[in-house]
Amino acid sequence: MPSATDISDFLAAEFPQTKCRVDAVGGMSATVRHEVGPHELRPGGTVSGPVLMTVADVALYVAILGEIGIVPLAVTTNLNINFLRKPPADRAIVGVCKLIKVGRTLAVGEVALYSEGLPEPVAHVVGTYALPPDRPR
Amino acid sequence: MPSATDISDFLAAEFPQTKCRVDAVGGMSATVRHEVGPHELRPGGTVSGPVLMTVADVALYVAILGEIGIVPLAVTTNLNINFLRKPPADRAIVGVCKLIKVGRTLAVGEVALYSEGLPEPVAHVVGTYALPPDRPR
Amino acid sequence: MPSATDISDFLAAEFPQTKCRVDAVGGMSATVRHEVGPHELRPGGTVSGPVLMTVADVALYVAILGEIGIVPLAVTTNLNINFLRKPPADRAIVGVCKLIKVGRTLAVGEVALYSEGLPEPVAHVVGTYALPPDRPR
Amino acid sequence: MPSATDISDFLAAEFPQTKCRVDAVGGMSATVRHEVGPHELRPGGTVSGPVLMTVADVALYVAILGEIGIVPLAVTTNLNINFLRKPPADRAIVGVCKLIKVGRTLAVGEVALYSEGLPEPVAHVVGTYALPPDRPR
Repeated sequence: MPSATDISDFLAAEFPQTKCRVDAVGGMSATVRHEVGPHELRPGGTVSGPVLMTVADVALYVAILGEIGIVPLAVTTNLNINFLRKPPADRAIVGVCKLIKVGRTLAVGEVALYSEGLPEPVAHVVGTYALPPDRPR
Repeated sequence: MPSATDISDFLAAEFPQTKCRVDAVGGMSATVRHEVGPHELRPGGTVSGPVLMTVADVALYVAILGEIGIVPLAVTTNLNINFLRKPPADRAIVGVCKLIKVGRTLAVGEVALYSEGLPEPVAHVVGTYALPPDRPR
Repeated sequence: MPSATDISDFLAAEFPQTKCRVDAVGGMSATVRHEVGPHELRPGGTVSGPVLMTVADVALYVAILGEIGIVPLAVTTNLNINFLRKPPADRAIVGVCKLIKVGRTLAVGEVALYSEGLPEPVAHVVGTYALPPDRPR
Repeated sequence: MPSATDISDFLAAEFPQTKCRVDAVGGMSATVRHEVGPHELRPGGTVSGPVLMTVADVALYVAILGEIGIVPLAVTTNLNINFLRKPPADRAIVGVCKLIKVGRTLAVGEVALYSEGLPEPVAHVVGTYALPPDRPR
């Protein structure tokens, strides 16, 4: 199975816009970290919702790649996000994904999103990816 | 109630990063349009998921502002997106929001997202905003 | 494609507990009606949430069967419900489903749930069914 | 804060139809158990989806009551369920809820649903309850 470095290299090609760094992957889980840029803030000094969704989507993708290998054809089919607290502007967003199921054609996982260093999640996501059914296994 | 121009002006201040244009608002609905930039694409020439989520979030917000007036304190609490088809890279994304309920403290709406000029939606969103309960009415 | 009567007969076998009646099906849509029984009420005289979820799930299933034929292997994979208003105890629940996509392996639709005779929906559902990919077509 | 017995007694009055037993509550979590009856099965010997949704909804409600006290006015506003595996007909359904946030007006939690004695969840739920903002605290 691919390492965090393998997946980081793949992401840099697949999602060139993403600034997410892969901190850990394996064992049906992944942790990614996203440094927040000034154009990702909202008035009042909070991180915009789409940035949180992006980090969650990447965390899910990384966790799945950690299980099935680097398969570029995996695509998100459903993502459900609950926004819980306003993330402060000056902290990175950390996404901690735990996969709930990796089946033949669908993978489901949840992601807790944190402002780095704070204990309470700022958002919670559950997402589904469609997997290529004839992938190598 | 605010016009499309009023809301566009407000968005330009509130979401300075957004490139969404307000095409129509009123009657519990809104239509917004987002020109896709090169950094919003994914390999294979499709629009990234977070761009779709952003357009849906803005469409919901615009439709709500059209009902309750320009209230900067409205915040998304839940957003559920189903990705349906790959949006081609060379078309703007159009979000058509219909509000389902505008209550005292919550508003719920759905958004169909289209690649401009194509008949089938590329994604479908349902979202909830928390409204300030003591807003002027 | 099957008629409303064909699908009603199938449901009576497949979901023997359901009291849903198929009022209309076809054209990527379906309407079902559920007479509320005394054991489906909550204190305060409202219909319980799981009854609403059941009616939505049946409406989705009926609409899908109307498109792909009677395929007992279709199963719900995701269902997202927003509860909007308390349904009064003395009115049937009507579910109006519109399918958004019927693909090869997934179908997605939305359902507006009404208390019969009242104009505003009591709940809104978006759901996904997994379809058998090798079904006859 | 109320005990598991207090909440069981309240549920027996509030949800007289529910057969859920409260196994544990407290510390932002709850475990409930639902014995499956013959009328809750689907052809093929699996538990119907609405039964799973009901158990999840009760688990969330019990966990919330464990935090805020017995407040009958709490109502579900959103529930998102992913169905993961077919639950066998002959095992009770166990719902394990962990609350993610209990705020002033909204509480959000997740529920893993299991067939008793099996390690993998059969479904996963995230739900939101609206709380009465002027409850005693």
